[in-house]
Amino acid sequence: MDRHFDEELRILKEKLIKMSSIAEEMIAKSINALKERKGELVDEVFEHERTINEMQIEIDDFAFKLIALHQPAASDLRFIIAAIKINSDLERIGDLAVNIVERVRDLLKEPPLKPLIDLPQMAAIAQNMVKDSIGAFIDRNADLAREVCRRDDQVDSLNGQIFAELYAYMIKDSASINRAIDLLLVARHLERIADHATNIGEDVFYIVKGRDIRHHREE
Amino acid sequence: MDRHFDEELRILKEKLIKMSSIAEEMIAKSINALKERKGELVDEVFEHERTINEMQIEIDDFAFKLIALHQPAASDLRFIIAAIKINSDLERIGDLAVNIVERVRDLLKEPPLKPLIDLPQMAAIAQNMVKDSIGAFIDRNADLAREVCRRDDQVDSLNGQIFAELYAYMIKDSASINRAIDLLLVARHLERIADHATNIGEDVFYIVKGRDIRHHREE
Repeated sequence: MDRHFDEELRILKEKLIKMSSIAEEMIAKSINALKERKGELVDEVFEHERTINEMQIEIDDFAFKLIALHQPAASDLRFIIAAIKINSDLERIGDLAVNIVERVRDLLKEPPLKPLIDLPQMAAIAQNMVKDSIGAFIDRNADLAREVCRRDDQVDSLNGQIFAELYAYMIKDSASINRAIDLLLVARHLERIADHATNIGEDVFYIVKGRDIRHHREE
Repeated sequence: MDRHFDEELRILKEKLIKMSSIAEEMIAKSINALKERKGELVDEVFEHERTINEMQIEIDDFAFKLIALHQPAASDLRFIIAAIKINSDLERIGDLAVNIVERVRDLLKEPPLKPLIDLPQMAAIAQNMVKDSIGAFIDRNADLAREVCRRDDQVDSLNGQIFAELYAYMIKDSASINRAIDLLLVARHLERIADHATNIGEDVFYIVKGRDIRHHREE
């Protein structure tokens, strides 16, 4: 393959790494805004959204031109098509961080319902899943990709725990319902972020191993 | 372009239409399971999930081979890459219908909280958005695509109404909290289904008009 194509593939990877690092930062800021009750972090997440949206369009166009102009061989084509899908996942992760700060904005108007332990832990796992799924893609590392997918179970189990705890608050005191629902939705959004990282992990596994683990991860 | 390629493009479209019709059926069944309290429809949605998952892999592979073997011209390439993205959206719509019936399964264990009016209406709009977004794709109809995107506002506004109503139930009677949260999550899942249809509409608009309405739909 010509050197020019390799160089463009490298640029594509760099663009995705940059987009991922913004998405990771959005997750971190959204949960820190809640934990440390910092409204300015809410605003920062909204600002990042604009950047990540612009990057999505830029990466889509770049990847498309790469296929149209170079007519790459099968394995490179798989890689670029995976990049296009991953690009969508990262953009939706950014959207979900925005959904989180929309809830945080409401939560900061009232006193904290409870000390937060599980939610920040869930956010940390989700954030690392995003980071590692992109790392697995760049390095074509199927083992790491599969390992990211497995971490999704931890997130689901934390989500269950958080739900049970918040439900108990709501039953005990109807004045807590509003805040409990907001926290419950934050947990849901984090769970969906982890789902997107899992999608990326599955796509990476597929392009590296040429075998599909979507829809039968347990096998 | 050779006739063989045109024929394969036609097959790709047919596969997507079939996948979409299954997704639409899953939405209809998930909400009918709730409204008519029919547990057997819950099981049917789970069965459809297997089919839709298999179809996703099949369509992905088919689209990939179409690019790899025919090295299509730019406009056909855009169309096929859009098909790959739409394929992901349809699969996630199926997942969301499954998420709905998971909640319905719980809801059917208890007496109904309230007569359902807004939720079925929301489901009907979401289902039509899916249908029309795929129709817009097949017919390369940018006007219909844009119109689908606009309908997302109706869904968001219904979601807000449903939330307010359920919140009032929860405040009034803590015995209603469990069911109210389940219904609230059903509404969220429907809202996300509409979001996926909107994504499809935006992609269609882009490939037809060559102009991006993602992220600045209001302009």
